[in-house]
Amino acid sequence: MTYTAPAGMGRLEGATRTWPDHRLTFGPDAPLALESGAELWPLALAYQTYGRLNAARTNAILVAHALTGDQFVADPHPITGKPGWWEIMVGPGKPLDTERYFIICVNVIGGCMGSSGPKDINPATGRPYGLSFPMITIADMVNAQVRVLDHLGIDRLFSVIGGSMGGMQVLQFAARYPERVFSALPIATAAHHTAQNIAFHEVGRQAIMADPDWCGGDYLLDNKLPARGLAVARMAAHITYLSESALHRKFGRNLQDRPKLSFAFDADFQVESYLRHQGLSFVERFDANSYLYITRAMDYFDLAADYGGKLANAFAGVKTRFCVVSFTSDWLFPTAESKTLVHAFNAAGAPVSYVEIASDKGHDAFLLDEPEFHATVTAFLNGAANLAGLTDRA
Amino acid sequence: MTYTAPAGMGRLEGATRTWPDHRLTFGPDAPLALESGAELWPLALAYQTYGRLNAARTNAILVAHALTGDQFVADPHPITGKPGWWEIMVGPGKPLDTERYFIICVNVIGGCMGSSGPKDINPATGRPYGLSFPMITIADMVNAQVRVLDHLGIDRLFSVIGGSMGGMQVLQFAARYPERVFSALPIATAAHHTAQNIAFHEVGRQAIMADPDWCGGDYLLDNKLPARGLAVARMAAHITYLSESALHRKFGRNLQDRPKLSFAFDADFQVESYLRHQGLSFVERFDANSYLYITRAMDYFDLAADYGGKLANAFAGVKTRFCVVSFTSDWLFPTAESKTLVHAFNAAGAPVSYVEIASDKGHDAFLLDEPEFHATVTAFLNGAANLAGLTDRA
Repeated sequence: MTYTAPAGMGRLEGATRTWPDHRLTFGPDAPLALESGAELWPLALAYQTYGRLNAARTNAILVAHALTGDQFVADPHPITGKPGWWEIMVGPGKPLDTERYFIICVNVIGGCMGSSGPKDINPATGRPYGLSFPMITIADMVNAQVRVLDHLGIDRLFSVIGGSMGGMQVLQFAARYPERVFSALPIATAAHHTAQNIAFHEVGRQAIMADPDWCGGDYLLDNKLPARGLAVARMAAHITYLSESALHRKFGRNLQDRPKLSFAFDADFQVESYLRHQGLSFVERFDANSYLYITRAMDYFDLAADYGGKLANAFAGVKTRFCVVSFTSDWLFPTAESKTLVHAFNAAGAPVSYVEIASDKGHDAFLLDEPEFHATVTAFLNGAANLAGLTDRA
Repeated sequence: MTYTAPAGMGRLEGATRTWPDHRLTFGPDAPLALESGAELWPLALAYQTYGRLNAARTNAILVAHALTGDQFVADPHPITGKPGWWEIMVGPGKPLDTERYFIICVNVIGGCMGSSGPKDINPATGRPYGLSFPMITIADMVNAQVRVLDHLGIDRLFSVIGGSMGGMQVLQFAARYPERVFSALPIATAAHHTAQNIAFHEVGRQAIMADPDWCGGDYLLDNKLPARGLAVARMAAHITYLSESALHRKFGRNLQDRPKLSFAFDADFQVESYLRHQGLSFVERFDANSYLYITRAMDYFDLAADYGGKLANAFAGVKTRFCVVSFTSDWLFPTAESKTLVHAFNAAGAPVSYVEIASDKGHDAFLLDEPEFHATVTAFLNGAANLAGLTDRA
C-alpha cells in the first residue's frame, strides 16, 4: 500500500506555503524494519524533486541531507522562507544540473519536515511519540529512501551525493545497495563518528534534556518547547562547523554595535551575537527531539563495525565509482577520515578519486561558495555521465 | 588596613577541612580600583603557600591558576578531597621545588574559593552579589595578587608561572609590573582570546543562563543552583581541553559497561559517561556566577589592545626573562599563539626561550604527566635561579 498524501498536510503555523510537495506513507502492511529490531509504521517520507526524470529513469541523483538539513535543497524553506540549503549546487547549469539530472532529496526519518519523526502521533497511544519514537540509524534512513526510489520506479541512481551526515548516507547506500547506484560522492564525512564527534553531540543532547521545558521529551503534550536548551545545542554545534580561521576572518574580536566593551554580559562581541542568532533561528525550524534522534544516529554510525571491523569489506565487489571530497580546515570531519575512506575503497578495488580542497571555511565549506569544490563535482559527474551513457538532456 | 581573617571562615557544607589557610581582606579605605571603573570592597584574597620564603624574600614564585582552578595547587582540595591540581609540578624535588622556592597561589577575584566573587555578600544590599558583582578582568586579578605580595613583603618575584588563563595573568603581570618579576613562564596561553575561544565561552554562559534555576543570577537568594546549565557548560568546555587524539586514545568508540548499543539515550559510549561525570563533579565545587565572570575576563583579555594595538609595546624595556611553552595538540591555545608571543618578546628585546612540547594530550597537557614539559620548567628555573644568584636552599 503506497499512496501520496494530500498537499497541505504539512502546513505549520508560520509556514510560508504548504509542504511537503511530495509525501509517501506506508501503513501497518508495509512497516520499515529498523536496525534496532523495531518496526516503524505509519512511515511517512517527505521529499522534493528538481529537474525531470528521463524516460529511461537513469538520470536520478539522490541528495542526502545533513543533520539539520532537510529536503528543501533548491527551493525556499517553507518555514523560514530562506533559499534552499544547496541552491549554490543544484539548479540549471549548476554542478547538479537540473536540466540534465533529476534530483531527489528525502527528509530523513527521525526528522521534522514531513518524514516520520518523534513529533508525529504514535498510533499506539494517540499522542506525539516523544521518546517513544524508535531509535533510528543511518542505515534506517537509507532503507527509507529506497522506498521513495521504488515508488518513483528508479532501479538505479546515476549518483548519490551528500555532505557530513549526508555523506554517511552516501557510504551506507553504496555499501548496502551497490547495484542501485552508479556513482557516489561522500563529502566532508567519515565512516564512523569519533569520540570527539560523539562528545560534542552529547553536549547538545544534555543541553536539550537539561531544559525543564523538554518535559522528558513530552513537551508537545505540555504545549512547551525546550527552546533554550535547543538553542544552546545549536550554538555548541555551530562552532564545530566553522574553522578557527573562518571565525577569525568573519568576526575576530570585533565588537557588536558598540565602541567599547560593556563590562556586562551583553553580546559585546560580534561572534557572540552571531551565535545567539544561530541558536534562536534554529529553534524556529527544528524539533528538539529530532535533534536528539538524528545526532544519536550519527553517533551510532560505524560502517566498519557492521562489516566485521574492516571498512574495505563494506565495499567488496562494489562497482560504484566514488569521488571523495574533504576540506583542509574541516576539523569536525577532518581530511584524515576521508583518506581512511579512500584507502578502504582502494583495498576493496572500488574505483575512487579523491580531492582535498584547500579552504579555510571549515566543515561548512561544502555548503558555501567553493569554486574548486563545485568544479570537482561538475567534472566528476560529467565523467560519470559519459561512462553511464547519460549523454542526452533529460 | 590589612588583616588576616580567622581560620575557618571558608567552612562549607561538605568541606573536608577549614579553608582558606590564608586570607587577606581590605575594607572601604583600600578598595581595589577595577578596569571597569568600579571599586571593589570588601576585597578578600584567599591564598595558599608552599615552601618557605627565604630571609631576603627573593625565592617567591607566584602560580596563577586557570579558569576552573584555585589556590589549592599542592594540597588536597577542601571540597572534593582530591589532590592539588598541580601536585605533579609543585613539591620537594619537583620542578617548582618547595625546598628551594616559596610558592604562592591566590584564588582569582571573581572566583569562589575564598577570594571576592559573586557569591559574596554585597555590602550595599546585604544579599549575595549575583550579577551586581563588578565585572573583573585579567589585569584586575593581577592587581589583586600584588596586594598579597605587598602583604608578604615580596618586592620582586623570582618567577610567575601559569597555564591557560594562568598564562594570561603571567603576561599581564610581566607587562604591568616588570620590575617585580625576574622570570616568567606563560604556558599554553595567548595574549588574547580568539573568536573561537569567545564562542565556546559564550555557549557555556548561555547554558548557565538558560537554566531557570539560575534565576537571573540570584539563585543563592532563592536557594537554588543552576546545576544542569553549569554541567552543560563544563562538558562543552571540557572537550576543548582535550585533543581529538587524546579522546580517541582514552575512549574511542568504546561502550560503557554494556556489550552492545542500547538504542536509547543512555550513555552508551564511555566518552559520554566521562563527560557527564565531568559536568556533575564540577557543579559540586564551582559557582555558576563565578564561571560567568571568569570566562568573561578571559574573553576581554587583549594585551595588545591595551598597548596601542601592538603586542611588543606591552613588553618594551622589560627585563624579565621569559620561557614560553606550548603543546602541539592544544587547539584551544594553539602553538601559533605562543609563537606570536615569542615574536612580540623578540621585537621588544625581552629575553625569551620557547619550547614547543610534542604531546597528543591537548590543552590540558600542562596539568598532566609530560616529562619534557617538567624538564623544561626545571631547567629554565635552574638557569634563572643561577642568574638571580638564588643558589641557596630556602
